[in-house]
Amino acid sequence: MYRIGIDIGGMSIKAGIVKDGEIISTKTKVTRIDGVLDTLIDDLSDLINGILNENGIEIDKVEKIGVGFPGVVTNKGYVTCVNLKLINQPVLDKLNDKFKNIKVSIANDANVAALAEYRHGSMKGFESGVMITLGTGVGGGVVINDRLISGANGIGAELGHLIIGENYYDCNCGNNGCFETFCSATAIINYAKKLIEENKDCKLYQVCEGNLDNLTAKMVFDLYKEKDEISVEVINRFKKYLAIGIANIVNFIDPDVVSIGGGVSNASNIILDNLSDEVKKHLPFKESNICDIVIAKFKNDAGILGASEL
Amino acid sequence: MYRIGIDIGGMSIKAGIVKDGEIISTKTKVTRIDGVLDTLIDDLSDLINGILNENGIEIDKVEKIGVGFPGVVTNKGYVTCVNLKLINQPVLDKLNDKFKNIKVSIANDANVAALAEYRHGSMKGFESGVMITLGTGVGGGVVINDRLISGANGIGAELGHLIIGENYYDCNCGNNGCFETFCSATAIINYAKKLIEENKDCKLYQVCEGNLDNLTAKMVFDLYKEKDEISVEVINRFKKYLAIGIANIVNFIDPDVVSIGGGVSNASNIILDNLSDEVKKHLPFKESNICDIVIAKFKNDAGILGASEL
Repeated sequence: MYRIGIDIGGMSIKAGIVKDGEIISTKTKVTRIDGVLDTLIDDLSDLINGILNENGIEIDKVEKIGVGFPGVVTNKGYVTCVNLKLINQPVLDKLNDKFKNIKVSIANDANVAALAEYRHGSMKGFESGVMITLGTGVGGGVVINDRLISGANGIGAELGHLIIGENYYDCNCGNNGCFETFCSATAIINYAKKLIEENKDCKLYQVCEGNLDNLTAKMVFDLYKEKDEISVEVINRFKKYLAIGIANIVNFIDPDVVSIGGGVSNASNIILDNLSDEVKKHLPFKESNICDIVIAKFKNDAGILGASEL
Repeated sequence: MYRIGIDIGGMSIKAGIVKDGEIISTKTKVTRIDGVLDTLIDDLSDLINGILNENGIEIDKVEKIGVGFPGVVTNKGYVTCVNLKLINQPVLDKLNDKFKNIKVSIANDANVAALAEYRHGSMKGFESGVMITLGTGVGGGVVINDRLISGANGIGAELGHLIIGENYYDCNCGNNGCFETFCSATAIINYAKKLIEENKDCKLYQVCEGNLDNLTAKMVFDLYKEKDEISVEVINRFKKYLAIGIANIVNFIDPDVVSIGGGVSNASNIILDNLSDEVKKHLPFKESNICDIVIAKFKNDAGILGASEL
């Protein structure tokens, strides 16, 4: 039997056929965003039928379909994704109508990625693990005893919106001090822009050719390695708050492992350098052992693989 | 068969005999603090033998002994309690030596209280619950599916040390912005003192008879009801950060229920007033349902009852 895992993003929808924990084929479609649920359901259906056809697999050989969404998925299967213009839509019911004899499951995409890392990747073999995805925003997933902790109302593991300090600008969610305003790629870019605007006679401004719209987090990490003053200040601030964010996770559930994924995690050497010690400084009992802190194994495949495991 | 639950505090050690979830007898002893583990073990042993004698119960009718400590209890049974001058002491091993045929369990006292509330009190019937104890400090306990989440290293549920903002003074733990520096009784007293010192021509200064050492959190709550300006400012700040702290809990594991205990929770009407709405404001998805927020059922008995359930 086969499983299908689907990863819905703001730009594309990726589907994969999974057998025994391995992705054997993938297919991608541009995400159509018109705020109509049936459009999305039709696209998912086309994608699933398409990939099965391409691989000569009959639909009755599929035991499970799992889908990860970039938003809130309630325990009753209602989805709210601002990026997809879907507000509280009965996605699970619609998918169940479409695929009557197959078990369909849906979940938040960061939760899905956490499950992939827990079952097959960087958190494999640990009893409890928390994944933090540092990308455009910050997402998270919590797995304890092989069970995703998505919460009583499906709004758990929104780690990007843990309030961990005070920041000079507000989060998109309307609050101040959210983890993702300190530790996402966007946060790195924002803070670098702020410093560059205070002093344009700097390497970062040269690297982005005098256009701050070109600035990327990778540029800042690259110049950090060259000890560029602004880049060092930006990355040190990022690392300070990353340590506080992880310390909050440890203070809360003290997991066996914390895994860091997302685009920012490509700078793994810089991120992991001294990170455990910085986390310990932010705990009340500094002499205790703490969790392993590791970099996620899967890059683009976590969404498909994790969804197939739901 | 009987169980014995013991609640160790900085001032006294309370033991209780528990049968079918009811405390049938209690006995108390002053806590001797000399930093010697054997002193504590002897005192616990005397207390247990004493209460059994008083009730005419033979030791072989005791199936379980549980002890709650005001500090860190590792999964291997090592205890660190700064207040008791015990650093990383093998408490469980010592107790097992002393009570060879009885199952002995030990845990952090706030975790123990959470278990009591989960099994018999304000969190009974819920699948997942988080207890916050607002006292001299802030403690916490997390229970999911009838299981205490004390963590991989026994340092979990230190909710008082979640960093949730920036504060004008540092926490005892050496960090800035800890939940307990905003929401403990001590925090309320500290902030009121600060405001009184800026303006001594106020009711609070009168109520504590011109001696700030007399100031209590209860005085501030009492004058809040009379709309005293300083008291309103202090309690509003307390409530703002309580909402942020609970929002962080919801953003993390989205439990079915949050229960508030500890001395400060006596001001339950003031605390609960508008609290859920304030918590929602600090979530990314403000239209979602969230957990029930309730006041703990047990006052002094939670420690004994919860310990007997370990």
